[in-house]
Amino acid sequence: MTKNFASDNHSGALPEMIKAIQGVNVGHVHAYGGDEYTQNSVKKFKSFFGSGVDVHFVFNGTAANVLSIKAFLKPYEAVLCAETSHLNMDECGAPEALTGCKLRLLPSADGKIKISDLDKQYIRLGDQHYSQPKMISITQPTEYGTVYTVEEMKAIGKWAKDHNMFFHVDGARFSNAAVSLGKTLKEISADVGVDVLSFGGTKNGLLMGEAVVFFNTKFAKDFKFYRKQLMQLGSKTRFVAAQFEEYFSNDLWKKTAEHSLKMAKLLRSQLSEIPKVEITQKTESNAVFAKFPKEWVKPLKDKYFFYVWDENTFEVRLMTTFDTTEEQVMDFTNTARELSKK
Amino acid sequence: MTKNFASDNHSGALPEMIKAIQGVNVGHVHAYGGDEYTQNSVKKFKSFFGSGVDVHFVFNGTAANVLSIKAFLKPYEAVLCAETSHLNMDECGAPEALTGCKLRLLPSADGKIKISDLDKQYIRLGDQHYSQPKMISITQPTEYGTVYTVEEMKAIGKWAKDHNMFFHVDGARFSNAAVSLGKTLKEISADVGVDVLSFGGTKNGLLMGEAVVFFNTKFAKDFKFYRKQLMQLGSKTRFVAAQFEEYFSNDLWKKTAEHSLKMAKLLRSQLSEIPKVEITQKTESNAVFAKFPKEWVKPLKDKYFFYVWDENTFEVRLMTTFDTTEEQVMDFTNTARELSKK
Amino acid sequence: MTKNFASDNHSGALPEMIKAIQGVNVGHVHAYGGDEYTQNSVKKFKSFFGSGVDVHFVFNGTAANVLSIKAFLKPYEAVLCAETSHLNMDECGAPEALTGCKLRLLPSADGKIKISDLDKQYIRLGDQHYSQPKMISITQPTEYGTVYTVEEMKAIGKWAKDHNMFFHVDGARFSNAAVSLGKTLKEISADVGVDVLSFGGTKNGLLMGEAVVFFNTKFAKDFKFYRKQLMQLGSKTRFVAAQFEEYFSNDLWKKTAEHSLKMAKLLRSQLSEIPKVEITQKTESNAVFAKFPKEWVKPLKDKYFFYVWDENTFEVRLMTTFDTTEEQVMDFTNTARELSKK
Amino acid sequence: MTKNFASDNHSGALPEMIKAIQGVNVGHVHAYGGDEYTQNSVKKFKSFFGSGVDVHFVFNGTAANVLSIKAFLKPYEAVLCAETSHLNMDECGAPEALTGCKLRLLPSADGKIKISDLDKQYIRLGDQHYSQPKMISITQPTEYGTVYTVEEMKAIGKWAKDHNMFFHVDGARFSNAAVSLGKTLKEISADVGVDVLSFGGTKNGLLMGEAVVFFNTKFAKDFKFYRKQLMQLGSKTRFVAAQFEEYFSNDLWKKTAEHSLKMAKLLRSQLSEIPKVEITQKTESNAVFAKFPKEWVKPLKDKYFFYVWDENTFEVRLMTTFDTTEEQVMDFTNTARELSKK
Repeated sequence: MTKNFASDNHSGALPEMIKAIQGVNVGHVHAYGGDEYTQNSVKKFKSFFGSGVDVHFVFNGTAANVLSIKAFLKPYEAVLCAETSHLNMDECGAPEALTGCKLRLLPSADGKIKISDLDKQYIRLGDQHYSQPKMISITQPTEYGTVYTVEEMKAIGKWAKDHNMFFHVDGARFSNAAVSLGKTLKEISADVGVDVLSFGGTKNGLLMGEAVVFFNTKFAKDFKFYRKQLMQLGSKTRFVAAQFEEYFSNDLWKKTAEHSLKMAKLLRSQLSEIPKVEITQKTESNAVFAKFPKEWVKPLKDKYFFYVWDENTFEVRLMTTFDTTEEQVMDFTNTARELSKK
Repeated sequence: MTKNFASDNHSGALPEMIKAIQGVNVGHVHAYGGDEYTQNSVKKFKSFFGSGVDVHFVFNGTAANVLSIKAFLKPYEAVLCAETSHLNMDECGAPEALTGCKLRLLPSADGKIKISDLDKQYIRLGDQHYSQPKMISITQPTEYGTVYTVEEMKAIGKWAKDHNMFFHVDGARFSNAAVSLGKTLKEISADVGVDVLSFGGTKNGLLMGEAVVFFNTKFAKDFKFYRKQLMQLGSKTRFVAAQFEEYFSNDLWKKTAEHSLKMAKLLRSQLSEIPKVEITQKTESNAVFAKFPKEWVKPLKDKYFFYVWDENTFEVRLMTTFDTTEEQVMDFTNTARELSKK
Repeated sequence: MTKNFASDNHSGALPEMIKAIQGVNVGHVHAYGGDEYTQNSVKKFKSFFGSGVDVHFVFNGTAANVLSIKAFLKPYEAVLCAETSHLNMDECGAPEALTGCKLRLLPSADGKIKISDLDKQYIRLGDQHYSQPKMISITQPTEYGTVYTVEEMKAIGKWAKDHNMFFHVDGARFSNAAVSLGKTLKEISADVGVDVLSFGGTKNGLLMGEAVVFFNTKFAKDFKFYRKQLMQLGSKTRFVAAQFEEYFSNDLWKKTAEHSLKMAKLLRSQLSEIPKVEITQKTESNAVFAKFPKEWVKPLKDKYFFYVWDENTFEVRLMTTFDTTEEQVMDFTNTARELSKK
Repeated sequence: MTKNFASDNHSGALPEMIKAIQGVNVGHVHAYGGDEYTQNSVKKFKSFFGSGVDVHFVFNGTAANVLSIKAFLKPYEAVLCAETSHLNMDECGAPEALTGCKLRLLPSADGKIKISDLDKQYIRLGDQHYSQPKMISITQPTEYGTVYTVEEMKAIGKWAKDHNMFFHVDGARFSNAAVSLGKTLKEISADVGVDVLSFGGTKNGLLMGEAVVFFNTKFAKDFKFYRKQLMQLGSKTRFVAAQFEEYFSNDLWKKTAEHSLKMAKLLRSQLSEIPKVEITQKTESNAVFAKFPKEWVKPLKDKYFFYVWDENTFEVRLMTTFDTTEEQVMDFTNTARELSKK
């Protein structure tokens, strides 16, 4: 299939990743993270997130999220999150099934949550009939491509602390948020009071692999057991570790994020000039949400596959990735332009 | 670290695997198994296991085992398996925690189970206080490197059918069993009545990746949901699929198994000539179990790392892999020989 | 404590229940439901709900609800229910933790759900990332004391069937709904397409005990194992069975429901005459929801304890029970009347 | 059915229990343990077990055991217990399914475990692949009617402390052990280092109801949430509480235990005189285990129902209860005597 706008996991891997894997494919090393490559990779994480963090690799994003909850909460506690969150919409009930915790959903039109809605969910403390609110989970950037500002994250971090709750960030595309905000990774995690971060690799050009980054390391101590029991312990860890090490070398993480962000902005600006196209969300990371006439969907999708996000409103989601090209964007939008003239 | 005898997952990946990954790293394709590479890989499986099988990829061996149980059993049912099985000894309670099922353990000195012990566990049917026996799980080759004969597998398969139970095989090193027995993969799975097989990739030279192969496909229909909920759905599936396709091409699966088996036999024959060395298990796959004087452990381990299997008896396990060399075997056994002369 | 308006489980047991228990306290009988008393009690259920039902006793209402889900759904399926439901608000996450299923919440102002909201949740069928909608659960009467009409129940039952979903009713106070509607128990369960009913005993005058009534008995066959594994199998079953048998004898179930309904209507009519009192929900069963000035709460509560339902709006819930007296209602409302004059 | 020797839950309730229930069936009180009756009952427990204990009521014995584990262990930890234990043999996998913890089984011929076997299971600490041993659970009296001596209990308590593990006792018939040993309840619980005790009511004459008694109260603080989520919170708590209060009044607990013990000793002494009868276990509580000719089973069972314990060896279990009579014992043994003469 040609390149498309479907998802950042329709793309393959950065060529650098293949090289990284090849580079560590020498001799025997300890399995299950006991190897030097893993240790080196963790060091890289520390240089970006702060020397105090604990880092653990897992296979996919659902696992990073679920294990973050597992590490901090007891089964009778609850996570407050947006009704639009990946946790709630795309993990087939894994969070509840594997932690026993309840998700309490906050309304959201743009993927973000509001402090005032957190307040409303801070209820029935000590009441044994009610799952006790204990963690806030946000997605940064959100599922709608919007990005919390540093101030918004700080406010949530402060609210969490003030209410004795933990702060989790689902950062499947976290690098994109940092680049979009012009901040370091640390400035939008450790520095705003995040306790634990699901840091994505797969959607950013790795073959596979995610990291759980603990800032509140007290809760990391049992993690290896939880990870094993939830079947997320890989044996040949070096192959994931090496990819992350490469990703954090030579500004690769930043360059790829910058590129996909640039492509998204181009896509947006081109689309916004086309009659009958309505942009429905801010474009702050690598996603453009838009509505256009229903009859455009098929011809456009045939050319560059993408997903209809809401089957009732025919809102579509267009994702750019590290390998989206300007030509692709122009070709796609030109096709839309042609359709608008019919 | 130099090569060692610790485990087949201390080794890296077959060079062919890196090439396979590189080969499919082109353009965008559907994620989550909806791509052509995955379909081609599944075709390869069908050519080896029979055209009727259903095949699903997961991340690791624990997951392949647990999801096999999940697909067939209800939470109040039980799996009969050897007390020495990986399921029981090395999965940190994942089988019970994630399926609700109970493991009922059969005694085993060599990793195998006996029909007479199955008979003893076939009790209390219909008794609501007792987890109902419903699946037999064996490891082939076993954790002790022994291999069930075709007749032994057939007998278990028949017993399972006669007692209305399912037959699961943990085949983390299944290729080694086939090669050891001089049989095709189908002859020791479909043809002996296996319902579902955990077919290992990681321990045989893949970077990572295992397959769950359903022969009794009726129970495969919900598998995709169970896999997702148990967090074993990878998005860029092509990178695992391509490795399996390569593994099944040009007899690679067979050649690598033959090699590690040959190295194990050499290791065994060399060791058995050395005074004070006692070989403790048959060498039917790529593991040699042996006892030697306690004071040999450190010097030998320093040279070629391996694991002490039983800390009370000082029995050790020596694993060979696709990249074990004759020189390595000779050097190791020569060192042992020297020690025996002191 | 004197009688109050807090909850139907603040009341004790009907005197008939003590007698029933005493009556079966003779000799030895089989435990775990294998006794004649249990069989007789089940026969009573059949005479009220239809001869084809399967009936199983459990300890409490949460268990009746959770086991109803467990019997019908797989862990990757979802229950559609009102956001106000007991399932969602008062079971400390038990439904999700013990079944793995997700609750998908429908908005509700009066405790009821709407067909149009069911339609909106009937999405993403076959999508492995999304818990598949498979059961509708309503509470009858609702947590707000409102009662679905027979037509409303029928419409939900039909929608369920049309969409290949199951229909569960949380009937902790089901008798009250039947009496309120002037219908038999069967007319608002079997006859409207209910698959499984949590039929309450505790809130209607039993010491303890609930029944799970299966109309779709195909899914009852594993129930005894699920009940045991979820720790709801009582040994001396006769003591629960005898209570239900008594409850269904001499119209006791009907008389007690009629009484508490009558008391609720009296309470409502008295309250509605008092200035500054706002009745906030229909009074169709044994609950009256109302708002009155915040400063009335303490003096009224001191006299007759009750619960503030919504701490933001100061809406209160007043429950009547089988032993609420006219004097109590008049005394309470007179106190309110006095307060209104200050 | 006439009285039998099947189980202490084939018997009904002590008449005192009915009276106790009747006595508290007055007016309205707080539900869910917030009532005075519950507080009074807890005081009684404190007077017998020590003023520092925490006591919580649950519905049945499986729940008391499972919740004891839940309160102390994390899902990746393991319980060491006898292979013959109720936990392992009669709870349909509830312990594993509801806590995620693994049971590691110790061999046992008489229901007791040995320190030397604990030593063998104290392995692989810190190894993420292995459920970490963290609790010892014994049954006192055991499922075979044998009783640990105070010294044996002390040794286990000390071993637990020395190895940083918790000590649980399944005491479904705990009173019988105390009486058999001539000790107070505290002397065989708090004083020997028990952390948590499942204290049985149902098998000792209550209608239903068990108590979880925490000596190590640090782990009791979340209990109310775990109990609610695992569906063991009863609303009209007074009816269980009142029974326990009565049970601890006027030496009722002791008298009933003495009686059933006396009946068991009589049964044993009578049986042991009969040719062809072999007594297979010590009779230290209210159970007699014996073997006799297979053809005796039917005629004896027809007269006084009991269970064949082991279908291979035809060993039978004969339980006495608070209402077993001397006549019943003599009639039963006379029948056996007659059979022995044929």
